[in-house]
Amino acid sequence: MEVISGTRIAQEIREGLREANLNDGIKPVLAIIVVGDRQDNLVYVRLKEKAVASIGGETRMVLLPEDIGKQDLLTAIEELNQDNKVDGILLQLPLPDELEKEKEEILGAIKIEKDVDGFTPANRGRLAGDGALFVSCAALACLEVIDRVYPSLEGKKIILAGDSFDVVVPLATILLKRQYPVSLYPCYQDGLAGKADILMVEKGAPRIIREADIQGEPLIIDAGFYWESGSSCGNVHCESVTGSGGYLLPVPGGLGPVLIAKLCENVSRAARRNRGQV
Amino acid sequence: MEVISGTRIAQEIREGLREANLNDGIKPVLAIIVVGDRQDNLVYVRLKEKAVASIGGETRMVLLPEDIGKQDLLTAIEELNQDNKVDGILLQLPLPDELEKEKEEILGAIKIEKDVDGFTPANRGRLAGDGALFVSCAALACLEVIDRVYPSLEGKKIILAGDSFDVVVPLATILLKRQYPVSLYPCYQDGLAGKADILMVEKGAPRIIREADIQGEPLIIDAGFYWESGSSCGNVHCESVTGSGGYLLPVPGGLGPVLIAKLCENVSRAARRNRGQV
Repeated sequence: MEVISGTRIAQEIREGLREANLNDGIKPVLAIIVVGDRQDNLVYVRLKEKAVASIGGETRMVLLPEDIGKQDLLTAIEELNQDNKVDGILLQLPLPDELEKEKEEILGAIKIEKDVDGFTPANRGRLAGDGALFVSCAALACLEVIDRVYPSLEGKKIILAGDSFDVVVPLATILLKRQYPVSLYPCYQDGLAGKADILMVEKGAPRIIREADIQGEPLIIDAGFYWESGSSCGNVHCESVTGSGGYLLPVPGGLGPVLIAKLCENVSRAARRNRGQV
Repeated sequence: MEVISGTRIAQEIREGLREANLNDGIKPVLAIIVVGDRQDNLVYVRLKEKAVASIGGETRMVLLPEDIGKQDLLTAIEELNQDNKVDGILLQLPLPDELEKEKEEILGAIKIEKDVDGFTPANRGRLAGDGALFVSCAALACLEVIDRVYPSLEGKKIILAGDSFDVVVPLATILLKRQYPVSLYPCYQDGLAGKADILMVEKGAPRIIREADIQGEPLIIDAGFYWESGSSCGNVHCESVTGSGGYLLPVPGGLGPVLIAKLCENVSRAARRNRGQV
């Protein structure tokens, strides 16, 4: 399979944004709220901070203690909603267990105009109606790759495996609204890689998709993420599929970087909106 | 095909609700907001009012003029949000053209705890996440019929045709969250009725599905609604399919009555919630 470099796509997107922001004199401001000190959360937010800096923006980190109560967290969000200098607000997930249970209410407190993750229930819900102000960056990243590989999706058999609110449901909704059929499976199952022209696998198992599973020349977007023996992998056994036809967005170096570039796009758009430029 | 009586299912549901409400001393109060005087809207809201009365509840009709501005409509909604005597709020759609463009914002003003139509963007969005407080009655009505015909959906090929925020997207999301695969088509196309065990057709064309299209013994839920020569019909040519195997929820007398019974269920649940009984 031809391996698609998510890193290169991300770089292209970010360069375009940096130039446009520079030309328009836009310096987007993203506030990232992190509750507690989970190491993986801290790693991800540093990547986001770096990416936002690369497009001429800045990040305001709001680090809150692990044991913060819901009301205090809601107050912190409301302050950022009210602060005109803040263009976008991102609440890093997962939250500590107690708050995670009330995630929907907490996400719902973010003003939809600043919801650059597209995670507020209202933006998620609007997607199937008259349109969301912001759409989940993971779903946008999948679309970016699909549209680059296939300028037209006419007649393509599209299969999505997973059931998440941030990848599968928004991606399926967007494709359906664009008038393309799409088949949804809650989890990857044997045979799917042989049936699809475009296969996006979020939920599966580490490295289960191998050469023998692939027929024709599908585009496979791997949206899984697992740690195995100290390194990261996805649902596709990358080494085994090199001889197959088609395209692979692999893990690592695939969806992750594109997702963060899409966040930069959302943040830049939020900044223009906040300055009345859209 | 065996014709399923939506009228009879609706009656069963309403009788169960009436008894439960009587036993628990619950008299649910539904506020219905109607903007303008579209005849079809007025017909539908009278049916809803009658159904709510049949389960021991009452309806407060809020009739607003066609040319009401958005702010005044939002104020009317906010008054109902604040009124503790009102358990559920339903905004009859479609709105007049000018307001219809701002439908998402207007629906979003309804408190999610009173959103018995499940139409607020936030309840729609929560469905793919940690769960909606209320789900669209049309999607619930489809599920009611599916679950009555098939106690298990294991191994069933499910196809949904349409792209609406109130039927297809929520139904697909619920089925996926229940871990069943589902195939989505933006519109009915030739051959679908021959491929599905369960086929829900919202978007198609009047009476296009005929006996020759049906293979095996599918359950077909007709969620289309058209006026032809002075009478209503759906996507299925009912007279032509009597000799086929399977089950048909027809139009008229199918989804419509079940949908209103599901509204009564949502209104009764809102009333219990409002009284601290859930």
